[in-house]
Amino acid sequence: MRTRSQDEPALLRKIRRVAKGTPPSSTPRTVGLGIGDDAALFRPTAGHETILTCDWFLEGTHFLREKHPPDAVGWKCLTRALSDVAAMGGTPRCFLLSLALPASHTGRWLERFLRGLRRASRKFHCVLAGGDTTRHQKILINVTVIGEVPTGRAAFREGARAGDIIYVGGRLGEAEVGLSILRGTEGSRKAGNHRLRKHLYPEPRLALGQWLTKNRLVSAMMDLSDGLSSDLHRLCAASGVGARLDGSRIPLAEISQADRRRGFHPFQLALDGGDDYELLFTVPRRRMNRLPKSFQGVRLTAIGEITRDRKVALLREDGSEQLLAARGWDPFRKQV
Amino acid sequence: MRTRSQDEPALLRKIRRVAKGTPPSSTPRTVGLGIGDDAALFRPTAGHETILTCDWFLEGTHFLREKHPPDAVGWKCLTRALSDVAAMGGTPRCFLLSLALPASHTGRWLERFLRGLRRASRKFHCVLAGGDTTRHQKILINVTVIGEVPTGRAAFREGARAGDIIYVGGRLGEAEVGLSILRGTEGSRKAGNHRLRKHLYPEPRLALGQWLTKNRLVSAMMDLSDGLSSDLHRLCAASGVGARLDGSRIPLAEISQADRRRGFHPFQLALDGGDDYELLFTVPRRRMNRLPKSFQGVRLTAIGEITRDRKVALLREDGSEQLLAARGWDPFRKQV
Repeated sequence: MRTRSQDEPALLRKIRRVAKGTPPSSTPRTVGLGIGDDAALFRPTAGHETILTCDWFLEGTHFLREKHPPDAVGWKCLTRALSDVAAMGGTPRCFLLSLALPASHTGRWLERFLRGLRRASRKFHCVLAGGDTTRHQKILINVTVIGEVPTGRAAFREGARAGDIIYVGGRLGEAEVGLSILRGTEGSRKAGNHRLRKHLYPEPRLALGQWLTKNRLVSAMMDLSDGLSSDLHRLCAASGVGARLDGSRIPLAEISQADRRRGFHPFQLALDGGDDYELLFTVPRRRMNRLPKSFQGVRLTAIGEITRDRKVALLREDGSEQLLAARGWDPFRKQV
Repeated sequence: MRTRSQDEPALLRKIRRVAKGTPPSSTPRTVGLGIGDDAALFRPTAGHETILTCDWFLEGTHFLREKHPPDAVGWKCLTRALSDVAAMGGTPRCFLLSLALPASHTGRWLERFLRGLRRASRKFHCVLAGGDTTRHQKILINVTVIGEVPTGRAAFREGARAGDIIYVGGRLGEAEVGLSILRGTEGSRKAGNHRLRKHLYPEPRLALGQWLTKNRLVSAMMDLSDGLSSDLHRLCAASGVGARLDGSRIPLAEISQADRRRGFHPFQLALDGGDDYELLFTVPRRRMNRLPKSFQGVRLTAIGEITRDRKVALLREDGSEQLLAARGWDPFRKQV
């Protein structure tokens, strides 16, 4: 972790507290040497491969300075990268934090940001190992997560075969409703609201991903970050297959009549809503019976099957079939 | 590597070419699965620790869009992170590229950027393994490098003891002259100019760092990125020691009489100039005789010694001694 400000000692002290809060790892000197040094050291576990993933979290693109509570920014910048580790069936070990801040945000905002980051770090046993800080007029965050998976056990987007059953965890579209609620308020937290919580404080499905790969149940897996309609296209492209979704089986967010009148369509939200961070995975038909109806409170739902042709089709409730357009989140099309 | 633009396939194809150009690693499936998947997989080498380091490279802070050639931006965003690996005595293995670009820069600029990045990737055997791309009005780059070092052999900033001799590799201050040359021209390359080349295309001292740690010659080590006066303070703080620099021994950039008249002072440049990416290290006195005068063309110069008190002092040529102020590069004080 390098910082280069006159406030360097104070800034480093604040950031170090995030690392101190995390439980000690089982092996000695696994991580943690990076804060105040040029780089961090990580001692890999024998018989495991290392998972590497990084994610942007940028003001204006991924969050709004005036709308998103700082602790939610801290929580989410880490948990969305953890979701990538979940998608491979891995266990997170440590992370690097790259943080660029306006000088005005190195006080109270930073403290609240670090509080959310620390909560996520402790909850998911992912230790802050190092990073880089600098100044910028916008809040820029990049998080690299290092995880591990037993050698040969990782799940990928590729691997789905014709006839495999497509599953999703949880309900889809809730986080998109949460974002709309957030945009409509003047920065109010309303943490009690389930959809808002789902948008602000997503929970990476680490235990589910690990259980699925440990039991060799999935042929392909990814996390839903940009919306089912976009992400399923990616899984199919990586696997060289197509898919037929059964629209009636997609698990929808519960939308009140009042919200429906305000223009929320549960089906469209489930297809195109972003930030769900649920797992999308395919299961060979012969292994379906080993899959429970839910795992640690997360419902697992079969929503379609993999097909040989490379089209992604959607079967509507009225029996009609149409090609599914990728209409999920796209930074080159719209901002937060 | 995730991209989320409508141009996703084209953008990914371009970026993939960087990975393709790199030589295959010795172990099968070491890296490279990340481009187009949620995360990358890295197979660690037995008996080694993993080095993790990340570095911002931001338009306006670390480079100027109109002044820095795109291929130099590509080269330098990787090589400055590689310099952190060199400082620990490590060998780079792979890297993650986080890239945020204005839509206007996904064509020719991106191609030239990737050309420079690919050259560095090949030269230093560091394979592109994954990353994240998004849109932003400014060019934002963050690079995470993964390296390896035999377990227990890494060098740190801490470890210097009173009596140890302080060394630097190369000449100091040349890159700062190069930056001034660049700022004075209208984007002209002038690649033939040695100082400009040193600023635009720094060479991480990987072989030197590996040789020094392999032979257990150093008690502490770091790379000089912000200037000797700032970085030596950091090494001393981490080690809980002080230092006395012999001003007459610091290896200075060669500055012509014309440049001196333009205000370049070689001594000040050597103390406070940034971007040198040379190694600063301390050697226990009894091991000094094992150190060559130069290593692979990089001169190694003893410039002072570590002291017990925590002050950093500078002995001037006139025999006077003064405290050395940290006046190196600081993003909270000035921009590029």
